[in-house]
Amino acid sequence: MTDLTDPVALASDLIRCPSVTPIEGGALDLLQFWAEQLGFRCTRLSFGEGATSVDNLWAVRGEGGPRFCFAGHTDVVPPGDMDAWQSGPFDPVIADGRLHGRGAADMKGGIAAMVAAVARAGERTPPLAFLITGDEEGQAIHGTKAVLGAVEARGEGFEHCLVGEPTNPDRIGSMMKVGRRGSCNAILTVHGRQGHVAYPDRAENPLPVLQRILTALTDVPLDDGYDRFQPSNLELTGWGTPEGAENVIPASAWTRFNVRFNPNWTGETLVRELERRIATAAGPTQWHLAPRVSGEAFLTEDDRFARLVADAVEAETKVRPELSTSGGTSDARFLSRHAPTIEFGLVGATMHQVNENVAVEDLEALTCIYGRILAGYAAW
Amino acid sequence: MTDLTDPVALASDLIRCPSVTPIEGGALDLLQFWAEQLGFRCTRLSFGEGATSVDNLWAVRGEGGPRFCFAGHTDVVPPGDMDAWQSGPFDPVIADGRLHGRGAADMKGGIAAMVAAVARAGERTPPLAFLITGDEEGQAIHGTKAVLGAVEARGEGFEHCLVGEPTNPDRIGSMMKVGRRGSCNAILTVHGRQGHVAYPDRAENPLPVLQRILTALTDVPLDDGYDRFQPSNLELTGWGTPEGAENVIPASAWTRFNVRFNPNWTGETLVRELERRIATAAGPTQWHLAPRVSGEAFLTEDDRFARLVADAVEAETKVRPELSTSGGTSDARFLSRHAPTIEFGLVGATMHQVNENVAVEDLEALTCIYGRILAGYAAW
Repeated sequence: MTDLTDPVALASDLIRCPSVTPIEGGALDLLQFWAEQLGFRCTRLSFGEGATSVDNLWAVRGEGGPRFCFAGHTDVVPPGDMDAWQSGPFDPVIADGRLHGRGAADMKGGIAAMVAAVARAGERTPPLAFLITGDEEGQAIHGTKAVLGAVEARGEGFEHCLVGEPTNPDRIGSMMKVGRRGSCNAILTVHGRQGHVAYPDRAENPLPVLQRILTALTDVPLDDGYDRFQPSNLELTGWGTPEGAENVIPASAWTRFNVRFNPNWTGETLVRELERRIATAAGPTQWHLAPRVSGEAFLTEDDRFARLVADAVEAETKVRPELSTSGGTSDARFLSRHAPTIEFGLVGATMHQVNENVAVEDLEALTCIYGRILAGYAAW
Repeated sequence: MTDLTDPVALASDLIRCPSVTPIEGGALDLLQFWAEQLGFRCTRLSFGEGATSVDNLWAVRGEGGPRFCFAGHTDVVPPGDMDAWQSGPFDPVIADGRLHGRGAADMKGGIAAMVAAVARAGERTPPLAFLITGDEEGQAIHGTKAVLGAVEARGEGFEHCLVGEPTNPDRIGSMMKVGRRGSCNAILTVHGRQGHVAYPDRAENPLPVLQRILTALTDVPLDDGYDRFQPSNLELTGWGTPEGAENVIPASAWTRFNVRFNPNWTGETLVRELERRIATAAGPTQWHLAPRVSGEAFLTEDDRFARLVADAVEAETKVRPELSTSGGTSDARFLSRHAPTIEFGLVGATMHQVNENVAVEDLEALTCIYGRILAGYAAW
């Protein structure tokens, strides 16, 4: 049996499980087995149906005080170009002091550090929980959000939460996350009238209209930023027209974009502003905006908790972490509605890429940081 | 046998041939049969290989004077949405005084009027030629251009040419073409660097760059027009990005456009100007322009020939036709290099659309106009 105090061995075991969303791949089974060894009472929570159903793990240990929750996910993004991997994405390999494999950084390595920190702490911990989902990299509908609903329904929960996502851009210790921008994906379609390219007067070309709308959407910044947040950003991610001959003005054109927004906006006020800009630029041309707000912006304002985490990071790494809100969404958007939530984990430089890897010494450092946080929290 | 003096019957016979480019569909066979009845010496010229090979017809009659050439094409564009046709695209139907079917206007009706005009004229014509291709609506590589090469190679040719394309926007007599704009199709690709949408600083999004380039290409007009020509026009016809997830900044983006240009430009100077604008707007971003000039701009400056055609049109329709250079390219771009070329035919309002149709009385009028032109040319 794997040594539960060794984060490298634990991470390697998890990497061997091909748990590409929404496939469980044995990763949650393994984690449950370890948690049970450590005295956790485990509950598996499955949501969704058929091929999209997702498995999750809720595990608790101890009573009599505020409960500290480690949160994260065992699912990983697909390997991508298999030929570009120097070793198999699901065959953990240590080379040049780095552990390679899909999920090494995002975030099987983080989960391994959590387990190892608990194993090393023995009985000297606060009441604990693991909330681990298999649906973070996908639609996240049947994951953390659903687990929280079930947990709250039976009157359980936690007082503080640490998510083990890879928060450090380049070196461990440099960044923790105390909030996240909201995210809104949208598809905008403009409808014109098809026609021969030599007679543009007889057609209505949707492309120049969409070009004008894109300028209106991007020329004036959405805002100048917000306490601890960078300015909201609209990023184009694609555009297209129906297949057609090169001599034909298309009947419609679409573009796809993503907005990462700070607390200056809610999803609702943001969409209203987008629609206002589009309507002004589109004039009489027909258009349709299909927005999907996948997360609201949030900021964790529990300074004592933030100080506890930052102190632990600094004590271990000699670096005072930046309290950031940058980057993508994570399940912290759901967890933060239940309890103050902070994210700190490994270095994310290679996440979602081929040859994803982390430094072995970072896995050890993260285990020690998590141990310091547990000890500090127990002493509150 | 069909009455060769009846343009409606002839057009109907041609419509029955499903001659969608590059398929001959029996249309050239039929035309050759008629031409032989009228004393023409016919040569079939086939170019290209396999599925893309195209058949063409070169037919001559008479000697001893300048040769007058009727030019055109028997191929048609695809029917498009079959369900939207009120009658079969290849089943000619006369309803409400109009002949319906694919090619009725573009340009089986025009060819029918040529044949009927010659049949009615009997022996009283100048030396004649028919240059009829089966590759006008396609790439036009194995059609008129190739036929002209073969004809010139054997020392044959003609002194003036009339193309029977549908030149009238709304009513017969309103417009003849004495030139055409050039045409250049181009695909512009911009290369960036892929990345997660939440971290645009770590990626290079090609879409805003392409957006900027499009503005540079379209904001300042290419020119203000040219004698008998409208201003050159750049028309976007499509854009796209590689398939990708909604949270990913794409690695590249492309757009497709067509420029119709007047004699202010040659294909070469135009492409140079496009590249200049792109380079300025793109800055350090990598881009690739793939232009294809399918026709240079030309203007037929033979005033006597233009007057002959305009007089014939006015005598028959009581309308003095506008001498225009508007609209799409046609094989006149090739024919005009061989001899002065003018285009006059039916009303093109429904060309390339479902339920293509022409007025039966226009077929009769066009036959009479062609007859007047033949008579006038014989009297030169």
